[in-house]
Amino acid sequence: MRRTHSCLIVLAICACLAACDRTTSNKEIVTNVRAVIEAQQAAWNRGDIDGFMDGYDRSEATTFVSGDDLTRGWQTVLDRYKKSYTSRALMGTLTFSDLDIKPIGPTLAIVDGRWKLKRADDAPHGRFTLFFSRINNNWRITHDTTTLLNP
Amino acid sequence: MRRTHSCLIVLAICACLAACDRTTSNKEIVTNVRAVIEAQQAAWNRGDIDGFMDGYDRSEATTFVSGDDLTRGWQTVLDRYKKSYTSRALMGTLTFSDLDIKPIGPTLAIVDGRWKLKRADDAPHGRFTLFFSRINNNWRITHDTTTLLNP
Repeated sequence: MRRTHSCLIVLAICACLAACDRTTSNKEIVTNVRAVIEAQQAAWNRGDIDGFMDGYDRSEATTFVSGDDLTRGWQTVLDRYKKSYTSRALMGTLTFSDLDIKPIGPTLAIVDGRWKLKRADDAPHGRFTLFFSRINNNWRITHDTTTLLNP
Repeated sequence: MRRTHSCLIVLAICACLAACDRTTSNKEIVTNVRAVIEAQQAAWNRGDIDGFMDGYDRSEATTFVSGDDLTRGWQTVLDRYKKSYTSRALMGTLTFSDLDIKPIGPTLAIVDGRWKLKRADDAPHGRFTLFFSRINNNWRITHDTTTLLNP
């Protein structure tokens, strides 16, 4: 009988902690994820691709999908960006907008948004879907699928 | 002392069940998710857009991203497909390939893949990233981001 009571107490405490954690963390997740995306935009706009890449998880599994290509691994994604944006002029001015950040449990979030590059001669733009994971208490992009339209 | 023991037993059983569940379910998740995608391809290729849409969660939150557009809600996604593919000739023959199905816990999975439509005059194609959730024991797409290239 005592054992049953103890079990129920443990389970009740677990359920309580889980519920409290969920309520407080959804707002925190949105704030933290938004901060990562804003830091990426700021890094890009000072010509700092390495700083921009801090938003991505430094893992072999980190994935970037665009057009017909799937690029896997943080370093490979960095190399791809550096190959595509060889000058400050090509990087232009990046704006993210229409961010929709949806927490999915305490360690995952999915983000939809728009991106736009303002450059001297064109303004490529599109949408993106980011998959964020909380890794060592930091929110990082583990998967990015981006669409591209030229003006 | 007895209470501590009971707690430890409960926690050990929970941990065991969670570990067992994870090992057996990853294979099951991949099998079940692949079956949904294969059923979608088969439905499309018999001209059955409604059947194709069975792969998506019938929810207001279901999201389809392509090009510059984000479409939300199962019905709205269905309407979009029906508006874009008004004839059997426009639907062509759909092939999904290079499927990479990654379970993320017992109720979520992320899928990368390629799609291609073979039609009389063109062959549009691209990549997609699907976010699957287990809902009432069925795996359904809750989020789809698709890139498009024309040949």
